[in-house]
Amino acid sequence: MSRPKSARVTVRDIAAEAGVSIATVSRVMNGQAAVTARTRETVRQAIERLRPPGTRDRPSARPGAVFVRCPYPLTDYFGSIVTSIAETLDLHGRQLVLNAGDAARDSRVLADLPTRPGIAGALLILPTEEGEELAELRRRDFPFVVVDPRTPLPRDIAAVSASHFAGARSAAAHLAAFGHRRIGWIGGPSEWLASRSRFAGHASALAEVGVLVAPELVTSIEPTSDWGFSAASRLLDLPERPTALATFNDKAAVGALRAAHERGLRVPEDLSVTGFDDADLSRSTVPMLTTVRQPVQEQGSMAVSLLMRLMEGHTVEALHVELATELVVRGSTGPVPVR
Amino acid sequence: MSRPKSARVTVRDIAAEAGVSIATVSRVMNGQAAVTARTRETVRQAIERLRPPGTRDRPSARPGAVFVRCPYPLTDYFGSIVTSIAETLDLHGRQLVLNAGDAARDSRVLADLPTRPGIAGALLILPTEEGEELAELRRRDFPFVVVDPRTPLPRDIAAVSASHFAGARSAAAHLAAFGHRRIGWIGGPSEWLASRSRFAGHASALAEVGVLVAPELVTSIEPTSDWGFSAASRLLDLPERPTALATFNDKAAVGALRAAHERGLRVPEDLSVTGFDDADLSRSTVPMLTTVRQPVQEQGSMAVSLLMRLMEGHTVEALHVELATELVVRGSTGPVPVR
Repeated sequence: MSRPKSARVTVRDIAAEAGVSIATVSRVMNGQAAVTARTRETVRQAIERLRPPGTRDRPSARPGAVFVRCPYPLTDYFGSIVTSIAETLDLHGRQLVLNAGDAARDSRVLADLPTRPGIAGALLILPTEEGEELAELRRRDFPFVVVDPRTPLPRDIAAVSASHFAGARSAAAHLAAFGHRRIGWIGGPSEWLASRSRFAGHASALAEVGVLVAPELVTSIEPTSDWGFSAASRLLDLPERPTALATFNDKAAVGALRAAHERGLRVPEDLSVTGFDDADLSRSTVPMLTTVRQPVQEQGSMAVSLLMRLMEGHTVEALHVELATELVVRGSTGPVPVR
Repeated sequence: MSRPKSARVTVRDIAAEAGVSIATVSRVMNGQAAVTARTRETVRQAIERLRPPGTRDRPSARPGAVFVRCPYPLTDYFGSIVTSIAETLDLHGRQLVLNAGDAARDSRVLADLPTRPGIAGALLILPTEEGEELAELRRRDFPFVVVDPRTPLPRDIAAVSASHFAGARSAAAHLAAFGHRRIGWIGGPSEWLASRSRFAGHASALAEVGVLVAPELVTSIEPTSDWGFSAASRLLDLPERPTALATFNDKAAVGALRAAHERGLRVPEDLSVTGFDDADLSRSTVPMLTTVRQPVQEQGSMAVSLLMRLMEGHTVEALHVELATELVVRGSTGPVPVR
């Protein structure tokens, strides 16, 4: 990401220059009423003085709140991302306007955003909108960042995601190192970018040990525990049972654990299972889940800082930011059983 | 709750009277810019015409957004409440300004709320503020509703909570009916209203079968899985082991299951365990948890509708609303083991 050193003026710098507290600077930037017009002007002038010479003519940051759209229930993954965004926006003194929940899925709010009073930018989490709607928003020069894009985006739309490919690859490599070759794949919805990238990572790790994924071992589900249970049941009832199951998220893995339990299969002695996310859930099972940690906090704060730069009129070079995932090894994986 | 029939004018009524769509009425009530001044006036006049005669001089609803403060990470219980609030506010065409996450805990935002531009009311979820701060907000005539009060509130502060007493009582009665008499209590922080009410309900059910709760069986924890694990470990290592554990929430129950597993105790054959909340978590364990369902959706929507009435200047008679909990029996409870 290009970040010219000269443009790095912090809230602290502004407070010092204006001779007011950091909280006051935040209040001014947030457009709160609890600040007198005089203080507001003092802060504005301090910002102007601190602006690097070449950027003086640049319009200052758009005032207003940040619209956060997360058309899913705020639990686990989505709840954690929104929490991280809320905490980071608060540090920037920006108000967060929330649009969330399953009921939000059908509301068409994007087209109105650029003209909505008091809204300076938006963060769209796993947006359900078509790429064309996002492209239109971009054409209207409204600052927004997509968190965890559902489909591939044009290069000029800012996006933050986890490295799905590398994450799934590390889980499969871990299973392969334990000797597993016949690994069931319980993937997410096939049209999701995350599903496709993760499957590619999985297949890549197996190719490295000379294995091509058998089509009968590949399933695609809605990422819930019930769907995970059904898919795992189907895979475990195959004539030649897989010795491991790699799943799309921790919820699906929980379903897989239940399917194993129902069949009297011990985890990890008879079957290894991996999740994805490292949600609280992954530490609540017996055994605890080996999983891929998504950088949820970092996704939220990175998305906010990209958006801040867009709202300040900075150009942002690397518009697509991918954050590293990390394999977390716990009790649900082990050596391939000896037949 | 007093709800004079004559005052029940719906968005649908207004839309019909004004000859515009329901969405347009919502936009006007939400103060969105995408509506012409003319339409705004048409809608305003329709609302005025529909207002019942005796209320014509009453000031109409305060315009603006609703500030939602939830100083906790948005997962499980808190995430679900905020989701329900978001969905309900959206139906009312009200914008939601979110203040959430652990980092929000230390920010002192209440005093500024009444003068904050664009904010018409607030929902405070399990507020960390002292009662005096809430009382001050009330004296300033700012409309707000407390969801799940942490401490007892003065009668004139509107509040919505679950029936903690009845919920814990039903769980203990269920265990007692299975023959359990020696039941470990893993309660929440002792200063919380919810903890005290739940313990009272627990003790009441046991008193009914002639049992006084032994002090050595009573613990008080932070409601997390790790704390649940420690408290359960301590109780299960008592010379005379309890045959059941009743816990403050599903997370604590998950910790209790792990403590049982580590000691080779089968659930429910050797030990029964109950949770509280009926979070997703309660269906992810093996066996699934017997738990007390909190009316999370209903708490969110009830809080919004109380707030709407306060913002409209209605008097609300029953300011403290308690919503029913429900015992959900699953696999983690069973008959007391025969010694």
